[in-house]
Amino acid sequence: MIIKCISTFSAVIYLLNCLTPEENTGCQHGLYFQDGERRVDYILTYHIKKPSSSRSNRQSSRFTDNAFTRSLRRGTARLGRAPTPQPRGDPEVASQDHSMDYHVDDKRLHREEFEGNLRDMGMELEKDEDTKTPGVGFVKIHAPWHVLCREAEFMKLKMPTKKVYEMKQSTGVGAKINTLVNKVTEPLYPNVEDNRTHNVKHLSYMFSREKQHLFDLSDRDSFFDSKTRASIVSVIVSSRSSMTVDWRLESETIETINYSRLSQLLYCFLCRKYFGEKIGLYFAWLGLYTQMLIPASLVGVIVFLYGCATVDDNIPSMEICHPKNNITMCPLCDRACSYWKLKEACGTARASHLFDNPATVFFSIFMALWAAMFMEHWKRRQMRLNYEWDLTGFEEEEVSDHPRAEYELRVMQKSLKKEHKTQKVLIGVTFAIVFGVILYRISTKTALHMSNNPTTRSNVRLTVKTTAAIINLVVILILDEVYGAVARWLTVLEVPKTDKSFEERLIFKTFILKFVNAFTPIIYIAFFRGRLVGRPGSYLYVFESYRMEECAHGGCLMELCIQLSITMLGKQLIQNNLFEIGIPKLKKLIRYIKSKRRSFQEEEREKKLQRYETDHFLEPFAGLTPEYMEMIIQFGFVTLFVASFPLAPLFALLNNIIEIRLDAKKFVAELRRPVAARAKDIGIWYNLLRAVAKVAVIINAFVISFTSDFIPRLVYQYMYSPDGSMHGFVNHTLSYFNVSNFQDGKEPMDPQHQVEMCRYKDYREPPWSNTPYVISKEFWAVLAARLAFVIVFQNVVMLMSDIVDWLIPDIPKDISLQIHKEKILMVELFMKEEQGKIQFIDSMMPCGGKEKRNNHAPIARSRSIPHTHSHTHANNF
Amino acid sequence: MIIKCISTFSAVIYLLNCLTPEENTGCQHGLYFQDGERRVDYILTYHIKKPSSSRSNRQSSRFTDNAFTRSLRRGTARLGRAPTPQPRGDPEVASQDHSMDYHVDDKRLHREEFEGNLRDMGMELEKDEDTKTPGVGFVKIHAPWHVLCREAEFMKLKMPTKKVYEMKQSTGVGAKINTLVNKVTEPLYPNVEDNRTHNVKHLSYMFSREKQHLFDLSDRDSFFDSKTRASIVSVIVSSRSSMTVDWRLESETIETINYSRLSQLLYCFLCRKYFGEKIGLYFAWLGLYTQMLIPASLVGVIVFLYGCATVDDNIPSMEICHPKNNITMCPLCDRACSYWKLKEACGTARASHLFDNPATVFFSIFMALWAAMFMEHWKRRQMRLNYEWDLTGFEEEEVSDHPRAEYELRVMQKSLKKEHKTQKVLIGVTFAIVFGVILYRISTKTALHMSNNPTTRSNVRLTVKTTAAIINLVVILILDEVYGAVARWLTVLEVPKTDKSFEERLIFKTFILKFVNAFTPIIYIAFFRGRLVGRPGSYLYVFESYRMEECAHGGCLMELCIQLSITMLGKQLIQNNLFEIGIPKLKKLIRYIKSKRRSFQEEEREKKLQRYETDHFLEPFAGLTPEYMEMIIQFGFVTLFVASFPLAPLFALLNNIIEIRLDAKKFVAELRRPVAARAKDIGIWYNLLRAVAKVAVIINAFVISFTSDFIPRLVYQYMYSPDGSMHGFVNHTLSYFNVSNFQDGKEPMDPQHQVEMCRYKDYREPPWSNTPYVISKEFWAVLAARLAFVIVFQNVVMLMSDIVDWLIPDIPKDISLQIHKEKILMVELFMKEEQGKIQFIDSMMPCGGKEKRNNHAPIARSRSIPHTHSHTHANNF
Repeated sequence: MIIKCISTFSAVIYLLNCLTPEENTGCQHGLYFQDGERRVDYILTYHIKKPSSSRSNRQSSRFTDNAFTRSLRRGTARLGRAPTPQPRGDPEVASQDHSMDYHVDDKRLHREEFEGNLRDMGMELEKDEDTKTPGVGFVKIHAPWHVLCREAEFMKLKMPTKKVYEMKQSTGVGAKINTLVNKVTEPLYPNVEDNRTHNVKHLSYMFSREKQHLFDLSDRDSFFDSKTRASIVSVIVSSRSSMTVDWRLESETIETINYSRLSQLLYCFLCRKYFGEKIGLYFAWLGLYTQMLIPASLVGVIVFLYGCATVDDNIPSMEICHPKNNITMCPLCDRACSYWKLKEACGTARASHLFDNPATVFFSIFMALWAAMFMEHWKRRQMRLNYEWDLTGFEEEEVSDHPRAEYELRVMQKSLKKEHKTQKVLIGVTFAIVFGVILYRISTKTALHMSNNPTTRSNVRLTVKTTAAIINLVVILILDEVYGAVARWLTVLEVPKTDKSFEERLIFKTFILKFVNAFTPIIYIAFFRGRLVGRPGSYLYVFESYRMEECAHGGCLMELCIQLSITMLGKQLIQNNLFEIGIPKLKKLIRYIKSKRRSFQEEEREKKLQRYETDHFLEPFAGLTPEYMEMIIQFGFVTLFVASFPLAPLFALLNNIIEIRLDAKKFVAELRRPVAARAKDIGIWYNLLRAVAKVAVIINAFVISFTSDFIPRLVYQYMYSPDGSMHGFVNHTLSYFNVSNFQDGKEPMDPQHQVEMCRYKDYREPPWSNTPYVISKEFWAVLAARLAFVIVFQNVVMLMSDIVDWLIPDIPKDISLQIHKEKILMVELFMKEEQGKIQFIDSMMPCGGKEKRNNHAPIARSRSIPHTHSHTHANNF
Repeated sequence: MIIKCISTFSAVIYLLNCLTPEENTGCQHGLYFQDGERRVDYILTYHIKKPSSSRSNRQSSRFTDNAFTRSLRRGTARLGRAPTPQPRGDPEVASQDHSMDYHVDDKRLHREEFEGNLRDMGMELEKDEDTKTPGVGFVKIHAPWHVLCREAEFMKLKMPTKKVYEMKQSTGVGAKINTLVNKVTEPLYPNVEDNRTHNVKHLSYMFSREKQHLFDLSDRDSFFDSKTRASIVSVIVSSRSSMTVDWRLESETIETINYSRLSQLLYCFLCRKYFGEKIGLYFAWLGLYTQMLIPASLVGVIVFLYGCATVDDNIPSMEICHPKNNITMCPLCDRACSYWKLKEACGTARASHLFDNPATVFFSIFMALWAAMFMEHWKRRQMRLNYEWDLTGFEEEEVSDHPRAEYELRVMQKSLKKEHKTQKVLIGVTFAIVFGVILYRISTKTALHMSNNPTTRSNVRLTVKTTAAIINLVVILILDEVYGAVARWLTVLEVPKTDKSFEERLIFKTFILKFVNAFTPIIYIAFFRGRLVGRPGSYLYVFESYRMEECAHGGCLMELCIQLSITMLGKQLIQNNLFEIGIPKLKKLIRYIKSKRRSFQEEEREKKLQRYETDHFLEPFAGLTPEYMEMIIQFGFVTLFVASFPLAPLFALLNNIIEIRLDAKKFVAELRRPVAARAKDIGIWYNLLRAVAKVAVIINAFVISFTSDFIPRLVYQYMYSPDGSMHGFVNHTLSYFNVSNFQDGKEPMDPQHQVEMCRYKDYREPPWSNTPYVISKEFWAVLAARLAFVIVFQNVVMLMSDIVDWLIPDIPKDISLQIHKEKILMVELFMKEEQGKIQFIDSMMPCGGKEKRNNHAPIARSRSIPHTHSHTHANNF
């Protein structure tokens, strides 16, 4: 029998250090080459589609060696690569489907060429001959010391030198406050950074073989830790092999295996050391964000409590709920609706006050500045981490700038131009879909609302609103998954040139789609609902039958608040925790069951699976995008509509305290260990955060001025109120309507009340003016005030954010001092070294130097150019 | 006689390469040490306050050597420094004022210690024994080869390696357009960058003595050019000497001498090579700015011409100028003024149209995007220059982060706390002064205007406005100088900690003050004049007698335009060209005359002055701040009020074409040559440019909506016009006033006209309404429209700018490819080197390697760990 298919080569990283060797003598087996000496730094896997006996496997191997590798050998001989030797000289050739086999062997050839190239780079490979996992082959890679040194030098890795210096403990009030804050918030998030209790630091310097004496190389095995070794091999595998296209095509589908269970103990307090800087940065960011949410939620709760405390002092709602209030309101729709009493809106009006009071204006300014502070603090934290992680001076690796393999493939296929056109069309289509969903939502909601209109009254209304919001949430959750797929599909169609640009485009698209998805219903409620509804007797209709929705008396703020809280809570509970934790577990289970069924006969052997084989069943690491995306949408909820929902930061905080733990557990125990990636910053996410913070200012300005009644109240108080108080405000906002002005067929069907005049909420001329029902001067005045408020708010808050940005230096003072100190120490170190050399030379040449030693500094001795000495004595003033 | 005062040590840079040695055998003398071999890299000067004979000079020198240096010698002996030897053993001690002498000798001791330290660093010094310039002593410094190498390594200088590669010529449409643009604009500015005609580039690598073989060191004298040598010595003098405070105090007052006349030939086409990156960046920035002004001024001229062409089609001005127009306007002040005919405003109305038409709205959007484009292009150009100048990977030197000497001095004096308080008060006072000047201007102008009011009519008015603007200009010019001094004084009081922060604070303060100074009158005219003037019969008065100013009919735009053009032209012509060129020349003349008078008796020797002596008479280089400041204020004129003055870019362009030449000439011929400073970017100036561009968006939004009549016209056309045309607009903007409503004593004194109703420009209710003279609904509607326009304009333009920012990548594509290519070439170079080593080892060990060479790649041979070889053969599938 012959193997049907050995699929393309795929690389799997493998973690080697078992915490301490003593703890895990059990796992020792999988961590070293067969000689028990050389560590496994990285593992490549390849898939064998149809599992067959290892015998036939070898046969095929021999076949390809005979038929195809010969030409390859010729082709690569000038590259100086040694073709794989053939240990068994069995020359039989099986009869088979040649075209199929050609494909299989093509892959195989690539693999062999690839392996040969790895060997050329100095790597040492070992095949796992007796793999217990059918369908998967493993190639273990060990990077010997000289390769590690060479690559570390090329990658300009900063490594700790022998030189140790004491880090200045930060003192002063600021530091004390910081320590206090850290202590208070400690239980909230796991320790995500290195514990900084020890205040000595090794001076770091770019590793270079010529400067080996600077580094402590006494223990070669531990000088480069497993994370560094793995990433060095990963760079060789993925980047150095980029010299021809073919290899990269092979190495492109890198899979990663996590070394799971033991590290569970670790959780994330050695996050950076275990996962590398990129994931370390994510946890640091999440930690800072969560920490920053504490003051925000505190202030938010205070603002909310202020609303609760002042609800009974609120004159407008007092006027509405006053027992003597007998204002008859106009029907809210033609024919079907009837007159109603303003008193009925009492509950809504009181509830609205909770979220619509002067404190919310303060709070939204506070939150805008909070966002600016957060960005600034993140910049500083990032700088600090860069310093502590020895990333200062490191430039982003060119690895990510590599042309994507798929791009080159497409270029080769010359289908690029056609795709480009399609892509543009498709983006248009997607936006149309988004817009269609909005329209669909509006009309569904309108219908829902309308059919309920005749029977619902304030309490029933609330229920309807809540259920509508829940329906909305479900739609959002489903569409979120759809949009994620759409974004990926669109980006693939775009064929970006490099991996980095692929990632950025994907993130950007996903962000736009998910953001639009999450915030469309909220924006609709905040800014479009209840506008342009017409007036009693001439309500506006869309599509002839659907009335534009109106908000309950007291503004749309209440509904906005309900929608916000349900979307936010629901998204977090269902999507983040259920999906993120539940689904990977499920997938893992399925993978395990599947392979179990396949290898049923080998069940007894399973106990002794190599570590990389057990890790193979874990879900591969899919990048940090979903984690960041989730958090940035949450950041949107916290900042964008904070004027209408001051409790958002609190909800976010509670979610994050759970989230940070679940994430850490997931990374350590549920996913394969990712290749450690170096990163100085969080990349595009920072820009997206900034964009959200910017948009938040504008949206909050509009929410305060248009959605809330803040501005009308202010205008009334300072322009129209006879005594400067809010008394009479409700009356001022209600216009008059003469029921005799109802057109035929539009008057209410059940004229239970005998009314002449009814009232409606709008600024229009009364029936007795020269121009009845025309928009009144008050409307324009209030509109002008609203717009002026938007301009003032936006520019003042933006200016204040800029000032915050400007006042807080990007680099913390102690870090800049520390960096400066490091530079000086480095120069001193080199100068000392220099002196040492000179003294050595002096001692080698006993004549001509001895007697002058007393007068000259050792450095001055280095002046070896002959004419120097005569001059040092000739200088006098 | 004894010298009275040898003032503190001051360093003077000296340029050594005389273009080609053959050309300047004449100047050879001053360029080398007395041995004629060692080049002078840097020159330190010290001042002798009372010139005396060189004999007494030496006497004093001996005195201090005897009395004070001994203790110093003891103190510094452990530093290993050789004290200055005494060549002439003349032990007489003159009787003199000891306290004075102590000060003098204190300085002297510092100087000697400093010189000793320089020698310790490996520098070679030579005193100029027979200086012909009295009062000035020179110390020539030569940095020997090993010092240059060591410092270049510490400074991580990137130097060209032997490896040469071909730069990819950029192809495609973009490149062709670029070439075309460059060709067209070539005559406009001198060639400020290296000529890029040769498309080969040396691969650069951080200089390191261990990698010396990479570099072409065949000509050691020219490997480091004069600019680099000078800056290396400068770093040693200023930075390495920072180990104790005292030295730095001495070296703080570095002066620079320019090597003038010969280089005049050069002009600036070797700008970077001659002046270093910092000044190179300035010229590159100025070049790009000037180049970008070309399209802006083109569009500006087109917009202006559009205004000219449509002036006769403009219905509002047609209506005003129509012969049948007989509208009587109300008097513009109480009692003194009389009725006037609207027809009289015909000229102003027509002129206003030139600057107040729909095209200006387009133009201000265009200019906002232009500013965003400019910022983006600059980022790209900067990146390109960084690449071409081998600055990629270079981090800002710590030199600028040094604590300023003065700061430490202050700390020592412990006067810091007190100063801090004073400073805050002072900043307050300054702002009060600025505000006072504004008030003063308003009142002066009001007075000027008022006294002229009865007699002036449109033409006379224009003259008054023009003269007022000229007076304003003179005030601005004087205050500019005052504010420059105030800013420096304030910053000195603040005692910033580092030189960099000193510079940034100074720039920021100067910018704020000069900007406020330049734009206050303009902002006043644009936004405050003509508002809140009251109405006929109840005009508003400030201080009981001064009326608020009103604008002529047709808006304040016309006056704004006059003010803008006069300020801009005047500032540029008088300040930039007269001050900047005239005053340095004058100063130079004065310096020369002064020293000539002093050294009258030595006149005949002057012909043979050393180069550094002649350069000593040049004005020292004072930094780029004035140049940048001038340009940024101009950038403000070009962007801030461009809606009212579309010709601003043209004026700026014309100015810059002259400016760039004058600047180049000044730097080369009028100033001492500055120490070459490395810089990756233009620092704080970029942030200030961004801030100006941001403010410009808001100001333009307000100019269009509030200063121009654009919004009222739009509102009239779409809300009030019966036929959708502009006919009747003038009538609509004029309110009615019944002359019988004049209060007693407020009616005009000369009732020549028999009028019942007069008109005035405002939106108020007519006399016959229920609420006469109250602000009308139209006013609020127009106000709302104006505010809405501001919001829309600001956010749309900001969004578009962000999109421009996002669409244009910061790093030009070809540069990022080039950088990537360089990295690969570097790695290849190292790999080849690696192979070379291995082959060398192989050839040294003839046994054990030969027969395997055929099978293994050279690199694979480097696997020196013993167990490796057994495995390379064991791998098979």
